[in-house]
Amino acid sequence: MVEKTPGENAHPFDRATRTTLIDGRLRGIASKDYWAFVGPFGGATGATLLRAMQEHPDRAGDPLTVTVNFCAPLALEEFDVHLRLLRANRSSQHWMAELTQGDNGVVAFATAVFATRRESWSHQQTPMPAAPSPDQIAPLPNAGIANWTEQYQFRFVDGTPEYNGETRREKPASACSRMWLSDTTPRPVDFLSLLSMSDTFFARIFHVLGVIVPIGTVSITTAFHADAADLAAENTTTVLGVADANIFHKNYSDQTGQLWSPNGRLLATTTQTCYFKA
Amino acid sequence: MVEKTPGENAHPFDRATRTTLIDGRLRGIASKDYWAFVGPFGGATGATLLRAMQEHPDRAGDPLTVTVNFCAPLALEEFDVHLRLLRANRSSQHWMAELTQGDNGVVAFATAVFATRRESWSHQQTPMPAAPSPDQIAPLPNAGIANWTEQYQFRFVDGTPEYNGETRREKPASACSRMWLSDTTPRPVDFLSLLSMSDTFFARIFHVLGVIVPIGTVSITTAFHADAADLAAENTTTVLGVADANIFHKNYSDQTGQLWSPNGRLLATTTQTCYFKA
Repeated sequence: MVEKTPGENAHPFDRATRTTLIDGRLRGIASKDYWAFVGPFGGATGATLLRAMQEHPDRAGDPLTVTVNFCAPLALEEFDVHLRLLRANRSSQHWMAELTQGDNGVVAFATAVFATRRESWSHQQTPMPAAPSPDQIAPLPNAGIANWTEQYQFRFVDGTPEYNGETRREKPASACSRMWLSDTTPRPVDFLSLLSMSDTFFARIFHVLGVIVPIGTVSITTAFHADAADLAAENTTTVLGVADANIFHKNYSDQTGQLWSPNGRLLATTTQTCYFKA
Repeated sequence: MVEKTPGENAHPFDRATRTTLIDGRLRGIASKDYWAFVGPFGGATGATLLRAMQEHPDRAGDPLTVTVNFCAPLALEEFDVHLRLLRANRSSQHWMAELTQGDNGVVAFATAVFATRRESWSHQQTPMPAAPSPDQIAPLPNAGIANWTEQYQFRFVDGTPEYNGETRREKPASACSRMWLSDTTPRPVDFLSLLSMSDTFFARIFHVLGVIVPIGTVSITTAFHADAADLAAENTTTVLGVADANIFHKNYSDQTGQLWSPNGRLLATTTQTCYFKA
């Protein structure tokens, strides 16, 4: 499912997340296409680490759960990825990927469980939230917020961002939003794009306070509820993303999210811890 | 807040989660008090790793988010814990703890972010679910399920486990349960017990199918929404635990959970990926 070392004509997301083995070192460089404010969009960095693990010849099975920690801003220069197979069992593997950049040490790292999933009793407890079809909703105009937002089409069902400068500190708005999400250049949804998409939700504090404040994802965990065969069967370039938060306290908030296929299948769930200054 | 190298008279949980530095190696042994079926209760193992990180002299700040991966059953013999400070910033740190056991390699590992949290805008979006007070609910009788369940008092508000052998494969029951939870020997709730408590929810598939099937937590992520000062102010030995699941598919399910103080404060949220055979 993963195209190895995508070329210059590959999808921008594949170019942004590729690494190349040179003299025994796995190297890469962030893409300006997915640049955020002080570094690349975290979803692209996470997908870079997951792609490196997926492309390793010893990897077996599909990603089951991935945790990515963001330690410091990634500079727009070459980085190294160090892979380690912490444990291999009969039908599961535990991997770690560390991204280092010169003298700057560990800038980001990810741990992931891969598993060979077999047929079992299957039951989706949670129904897909109702939503009008994506072609009925205009995408959010890109107001030059950041390069990475140009790479996605955000079609908000509710919780459309309104940053009007009026702070809602006394009467915070809902933290929940629902949006149809797709790559601007359509790309079939796979594990890499699901991981990246799970970090595309605008910070919940923007929604709640109605203003943009300094934020940064510290750690994100995404669990996949479909294997490669399931994703191939869905064959979609669009997902419904639902995000919410429970609490904002002492500079950190949580964020929960779900990514649904248009057919109503829950593809991934995600939680993150997000720094904020407000 | 953490008692270092608890002695033989310490609380069973503190004895179960201690490690000792011997000749430069951090060593420990699982406790029979928290034994499960094929190894110790995962919550105790996770707390052992978090305690080791917390007790390290270079650790600064309080735990913010912890991910524990369970790679293989832990044997009832000595283990080593290897700590690594992956990154230290001005007000946050990224740590890793690996548990190895002789020739068996990595049996479990944890990554954690620690942070010095400062006052900020604070808002709890989600209200605490209504529940009768714990003294109105009889604890679940311990039917010798496993040693570890004797260490906790489970007072179910709803979703009381009923494993009557009638499978509910065609009409699965709710995956949601609410329970008051406390250590059998009362112990003030701290980060270690919150992490452990976040793995005390009985597997969602037991609730949904009404039968006990083989299960095992693969990876758990717990985020703390209170710092040490907040926890000290709550000064509670009891929490309300709410757990749910979205999906059971191809041998794996998710599980979401919340731990509330009796005062209505959200102390921690948790998600896990759980293997099941059904």
